[in-house]
Amino acid sequence: MASEYTIGVDLGGTSVKVGLTDFRGNIIHKECMPTFAEKGPDKVISQISACIRLVLDNNPVEVEGIGIGSPGAVIASKGTVDYPPNFPGWESIALGKIISESFSMPAYVENDANAAAIGELIFGAGKDLDSFIMITLGTGVGGGIIFERKIFHGTTGAAGELGHISVDYQGRKCKCGNYGCMEAYAGNNYLVEWVEEDLQKHINSLLFKWVHIENEVLTPKLIHEAAVKNDDFAIKVIIKLAQVLGYGISSIINASDIPNVVIGGGVAGFGEFLFKPLNETIIERVMKTHKSRVTLRPAVLKNEAGILGASALVLYQA
Amino acid sequence: MASEYTIGVDLGGTSVKVGLTDFRGNIIHKECMPTFAEKGPDKVISQISACIRLVLDNNPVEVEGIGIGSPGAVIASKGTVDYPPNFPGWESIALGKIISESFSMPAYVENDANAAAIGELIFGAGKDLDSFIMITLGTGVGGGIIFERKIFHGTTGAAGELGHISVDYQGRKCKCGNYGCMEAYAGNNYLVEWVEEDLQKHINSLLFKWVHIENEVLTPKLIHEAAVKNDDFAIKVIIKLAQVLGYGISSIINASDIPNVVIGGGVAGFGEFLFKPLNETIIERVMKTHKSRVTLRPAVLKNEAGILGASALVLYQA
Repeated sequence: MASEYTIGVDLGGTSVKVGLTDFRGNIIHKECMPTFAEKGPDKVISQISACIRLVLDNNPVEVEGIGIGSPGAVIASKGTVDYPPNFPGWESIALGKIISESFSMPAYVENDANAAAIGELIFGAGKDLDSFIMITLGTGVGGGIIFERKIFHGTTGAAGELGHISVDYQGRKCKCGNYGCMEAYAGNNYLVEWVEEDLQKHINSLLFKWVHIENEVLTPKLIHEAAVKNDDFAIKVIIKLAQVLGYGISSIINASDIPNVVIGGGVAGFGEFLFKPLNETIIERVMKTHKSRVTLRPAVLKNEAGILGASALVLYQA
Repeated sequence: MASEYTIGVDLGGTSVKVGLTDFRGNIIHKECMPTFAEKGPDKVISQISACIRLVLDNNPVEVEGIGIGSPGAVIASKGTVDYPPNFPGWESIALGKIISESFSMPAYVENDANAAAIGELIFGAGKDLDSFIMITLGTGVGGGIIFERKIFHGTTGAAGELGHISVDYQGRKCKCGNYGCMEAYAGNNYLVEWVEEDLQKHINSLLFKWVHIENEVLTPKLIHEAAVKNDDFAIKVIIKLAQVLGYGISSIINASDIPNVVIGGGVAGFGEFLFKPLNETIIERVMKTHKSRVTLRPAVLKNEAGILGASALVLYQA
């Protein structure tokens, strides 16, 4: 390759973030603009373009290509985006082609969960792995399956919805319509919801005091802080969360024979409170043939995982 | 190809079945011998060879190759077999190489569940499908994932253990060590076990009468016969079975984006009693994007699925 830089576009519902990234995964320059998703695709695309232009104008270097991590159903081979949630009017938008033509360079589009997995593959925890399962714990629970250093796309590009593996057919109702999905326990809002319910039975916990006496807002971060302060209830909450994830991940490993797991997203910041019981649950639950092969690691890319995953698309495709 | 015939070897714990098969999936000649698994690999291999020899001696035609469907962990690319359950002494047995050299023709080995999927791909319900999920309902619940007309092998060849997807982390104990696996409800012995338990609460059912007054043995077949005779309890049993399978299959579809499902094995003989609630459950449970795309069909290969799946390996590899 001639150049040493790529552009990564992290397209979100409220803001679009664009970074100039070098081939080792360092972000050299970053810009952010509002997405204006409610104004329809033309406006969103002009925001993306303006943000890319701003980064390029500030950095007179040669760029290898542009990667875009987008919500919604992405057909990576065509660079099209369909129906991102909260993006009205998006139907078969040829985002890759439009951006590629605007900037006269290759542009690659992937679903944001897949881009996160590719980011870890190229720059992060998966650099030394041929195959791994990536789970991103955020508002939703995203997934990506890397098999032999390629994303497993399935028949239409929708594969990897690992958050919608159900661990309990009579479990918590998920917004997807199913019951007991991993997301229905581990997605940020769901997590807060069931912890709030359980909290009523643990009025002596530190977390109860913070939330119901000191009026702090119950968030995943607050749960972690209580665990760090050795609050028994908060620690047990994280163990329960880890177990639910472990049950689902075990099924994925049994089905896919991919025993390497990378966990990213905000809740991965729970650290050993989460990773220790998660590892134990997976090893307890997977079939015998996988027990000694399971590896579990936190994602390496943190706050800028969106930009870096998008940037990685350029190197992955090349 | 020069010839029009293949040899298919269905290696089981008690008997080895060998068939001469034409390229359309008709079995021309079939032989069966005891496996003598307890006598170790050399004896088993000599039984396989003797059975193949018998078929060849009776049919002086040119044969394209030999396919072998084997229990245990098979590395298809190497033709090796490890640890088939109930086959003492099997460790990295180069079954493909040994048989290929004995008969001076190509030999291909696959895990029996994968061979069943390949049989449907080449000769059966999957002929017109690029990608499908195959579930075989027998003593265990086997699985195979066909993606773009190839078996998805995973990292070591162990992928496709779909029977060990758990639908209820607090559910029935499975012999794999996990809880709530599809196999722990739908495997023949497990099915008989929980139906026997439920039967005690349904003493007015036809099935209760047959089993506890007329001393018939409770089998999947007997459950089906009671359903055919409109026994409300038996019909509900099959619906419950279908739902459990539907819960697990929905998770697989969400993860893999492969919405085509083929169901084989003895219990698939329950027909519409099983397929109607199974289809309803899957459509109810999968993510919206898949609902209109789900197809569910019974396997086409029935009693001779083992031989035909093995025979299909030759055509699949060629």
